Amino acid sequence: MPRPVPRLVKGFRDIFSADVALKRALVDKVRTVYEAYGFVPLETPAVEYVDVLGKFLPESVTPAGGIFAFRNPDVAGPAVADDADSWLSLRYDLTAPLARIAAQYPDLPKPFRRYQVGPVWRYEKPGPGRFREFMQMDFDAVGVATVVADAEACCVMCDALEAIGFARGEYLVKVSNRKVMQGVLESCGLTGAFGSIAADERALAVLRAIDKLDRLGERGVVELLGRGRKDESGDFMPGANLSTAQIDTVLGYLRSGTTDRAQVCARLEHLVGRSPSGAAAVVELRQIDDALSAVECGPDRVTFDPTIIRGLAYYTGPVFEGVITKEIVDDEGQARQFGAVYGGGRYDDLVERFTGAKVPATGASIGVDRLLEAAKLCQPARRAATADVLIVVIERDQMQRYLAMANRCRTAGIKAETYLGEGGMRAQIKYADRLGIPFALICGGNEIERGVVQIKDLVAGAAAAANVESREAWRSGQTSQVEVPETTFVEELSRLVNSRSSGARPGS
Amino acid sequence: MPRPVPRLVKGFRDIFSADVALKRALVDKVRTVYEAYGFVPLETPAVEYVDVLGKFLPESVTPAGGIFAFRNPDVAGPAVADDADSWLSLRYDLTAPLARIAAQYPDLPKPFRRYQVGPVWRYEKPGPGRFREFMQMDFDAVGVATVVADAEACCVMCDALEAIGFARGEYLVKVSNRKVMQGVLESCGLTGAFGSIAADERALAVLRAIDKLDRLGERGVVELLGRGRKDESGDFMPGANLSTAQIDTVLGYLRSGTTDRAQVCARLEHLVGRSPSGAAAVVELRQIDDALSAVECGPDRVTFDPTIIRGLAYYTGPVFEGVITKEIVDDEGQARQFGAVYGGGRYDDLVERFTGAKVPATGASIGVDRLLEAAKLCQPARRAATADVLIVVIERDQMQRYLAMANRCRTAGIKAETYLGEGGMRAQIKYADRLGIPFALICGGNEIERGVVQIKDLVAGAAAAANVESREAWRSGQTSQVEVPETTFVEELSRLVNSRSSGARPGS
Repeated sequence: MPRPVPRLVKGFRDIFSADVALKRALVDKVRTVYEAYGFVPLETPAVEYVDVLGKFLPESVTPAGGIFAFRNPDVAGPAVADDADSWLSLRYDLTAPLARIAAQYPDLPKPFRRYQVGPVWRYEKPGPGRFREFMQMDFDAVGVATVVADAEACCVMCDALEAIGFARGEYLVKVSNRKVMQGVLESCGLTGAFGSIAADERALAVLRAIDKLDRLGERGVVELLGRGRKDESGDFMPGANLSTAQIDTVLGYLRSGTTDRAQVCARLEHLVGRSPSGAAAVVELRQIDDALSAVECGPDRVTFDPTIIRGLAYYTGPVFEGVITKEIVDDEGQARQFGAVYGGGRYDDLVERFTGAKVPATGASIGVDRLLEAAKLCQPARRAATADVLIVVIERDQMQRYLAMANRCRTAGIKAETYLGEGGMRAQIKYADRLGIPFALICGGNEIERGVVQIKDLVAGAAAAANVESREAWRSGQTSQVEVPETTFVEELSRLVNSRSSGARPGS
Repeated sequence: MPRPVPRLVKGFRDIFSADVALKRALVDKVRTVYEAYGFVPLETPAVEYVDVLGKFLPESVTPAGGIFAFRNPDVAGPAVADDADSWLSLRYDLTAPLARIAAQYPDLPKPFRRYQVGPVWRYEKPGPGRFREFMQMDFDAVGVATVVADAEACCVMCDALEAIGFARGEYLVKVSNRKVMQGVLESCGLTGAFGSIAADERALAVLRAIDKLDRLGERGVVELLGRGRKDESGDFMPGANLSTAQIDTVLGYLRSGTTDRAQVCARLEHLVGRSPSGAAAVVELRQIDDALSAVECGPDRVTFDPTIIRGLAYYTGPVFEGVITKEIVDDEGQARQFGAVYGGGRYDDLVERFTGAKVPATGASIGVDRLLEAAKLCQPARRAATADVLIVVIERDQMQRYLAMANRCRTAGIKAETYLGEGGMRAQIKYADRLGIPFALICGGNEIERGVVQIKDLVAGAAAAANVESREAWRSGQTSQVEVPETTFVEELSRLVNSRSSGARPGS
């Protein structure tokens, strides 16, 4: 039998200690904010029926439509293309399963306000920082018709980003409304059916062109609104075939954003207010502005930005995204753009798909992994989630002694690992160093005879070895090792661990 | 287009608020114990290559071998049965991915001690409490040859079960050793190759027969050790075809357990000590006994029980399981058996599969969902993870006032939900009741005029409505509603919420 090659599936990854710990800290902070607004936790399965999830992902060139789909093993026989039970898929977001929940359990109290954290899977081309499995953390309110709920969603996003550690001015929540866009199209003689999931193809093409503004600039968008655009690789993307006058109207709309929300509303009213959708959209935006102002959520936190589109096809009204605006520089001194870490909006038709009954809903989703990348670059390195002390095993026949020492540490709240691998003291100290364990407890034959143990401070020791000044300090008495009686070593170690953990140190 | 039916895939489920919150609390407690021993967190993908995972699940009658396998969408063309890259699968446990990690990253410091929490998927027949997606929480040490690591694993299991709330005497960790079993087989003239993954079929049949002792009793096991057994449904399970003398030897072994670990070792030595495997096994069990005794881990926490097998095929040495022994009675007064909630053992060959090099390893896995079921029946009902207060929306044109009130609550650390659904005050109070939100803040036209708000205690209100005695108390002045000035309502509400949250109350 040939040996399997240990390898990851393309687009998937392993996440090690320090990142897992940091991610958990982020999730806990966001959770606290969600719960402060009364959202309650929910978990749904990773696997759903394909027809239940629906097809709402942004343009996807893969045969599977961007999802990891597979045959239902419970359905025997050859695949039947239109048999709803035949195909399963890993969920691609947490919103489609929520719509299923709202339809499947009609007796749930409404509004149903839930949050959910978990992985989602997309069958897309992987790239740097772009994985096929990533974690989302959503909050949504189902059964809320008023756009006050959309305003509240923006506040939740702001509070969550601040809880994570981004100050005001370092992030921004940008709001637009698909109905404004519909008003724009109506104003220039196109009547794309936004506000409904069955949006027509040309209208979607306009949306997708605008959605690329960040990446392609205004000129690229103009090409995509017109005949089409050839990219650097020579691939041609067909355009929406708008006339020059129509393109100008769209551009006027795209340029209508300012930091003053009331002024954006006034400009949009002027631009699209004669169309029914445009007028309705402006009323909604003004309601959102009022609700935001009530909770002192100013334009330093939430702005109205007509260039925001969001790719998912199920949005019907207000859409929003949260972006990190803080200049973030990576380890090589390169400025890094994190773009939108939060995305969301109103999707009034998603439950209706199942039941035929209107159930208005809105919410947003944070991309936990992208946020983790941003947070890592913004914040000083944390200690890795290792033990506080390594019990070095010197005399193998004294194993019971070492195990008992470790146990005494744990009873005192000190995280303790007894070294159970191969190798002598040197290898064990190196192991502790590599893991970032700050202290080692050493007790060999000599110590046992004298009833003492050595507590070795590995951080101070490493500093002394690396640094002349510390070496001087070390020589003058501030040693990196202290000898204490075995009977009372826990007290001394406890003191050392506690004084250490008050300061940050680089982790692995 | 027909409407999709909102439905779950067979064997999957949704988990709602109170259970998600309780599960998180359980996981946090277990995590604290794992970290106290120096285990660090790791995350691996849900999707792996089938050949990487290997086939180690217990007997499985499904064509897919108990796993959710599907074609790799990156590999075009028709399926090739023996192309390693063609087949992907959802992971069926967290141990097989750990073996991949150990093989794929040879530079990881050894011992590599990690814990991981996450869902796993098995394509099995679902049943009551038996789902196809369930959560495991594993800890493992890779690169540890000494069975002191197995003893430590038993301590970790004990500490975790105690951290969750099971007192000594309410749980038990039972230890056996596959090498003892090999000794038994050697002693009765069978030389099954335990201690290696390529265990022979007859030896596995003996193991599986013993593994059914709990369910079938000694008589059923004797049938399965002999010619086979017909179950209640008439299905025939072929047996291991041992002779009567061989079966007697196995029975002697099965009856060798007692609460005295040293005595079990003595009995086993007498029974199988002449065979090389048996002698080695007894040495290992004595080392484990010594290590357990060093940390005062007596037979009230860990016993040696030769009837423990564990179903997974990759175990090579000590195996252990943690069982809840506490009598648990469900809501209908029926005694419930939870059996093993923890399972684990040593698997010295699992990394070697990939690399050819021996990398000894051991660890255990807790079944979080089964534990959750046990914990729910053992512990008093907790408050659901809802908001502390519902801001009732009475005058729609006063929305800004209500939003600002909610915001003031949150600033003071009170979880507050503004009601954004349809319906009047009655509907809103009913909503709060159904969710288990303990307080409602009421501020209508009358209150606004007088600059006050009403804080309604929904728990006291419900009690008063249900109970004559409370009704008396309510009449005599302990009302369920209090009127306070709008300017200072947050202080009063804060006091009420804090005094309430010190006591438990039934949640939804």
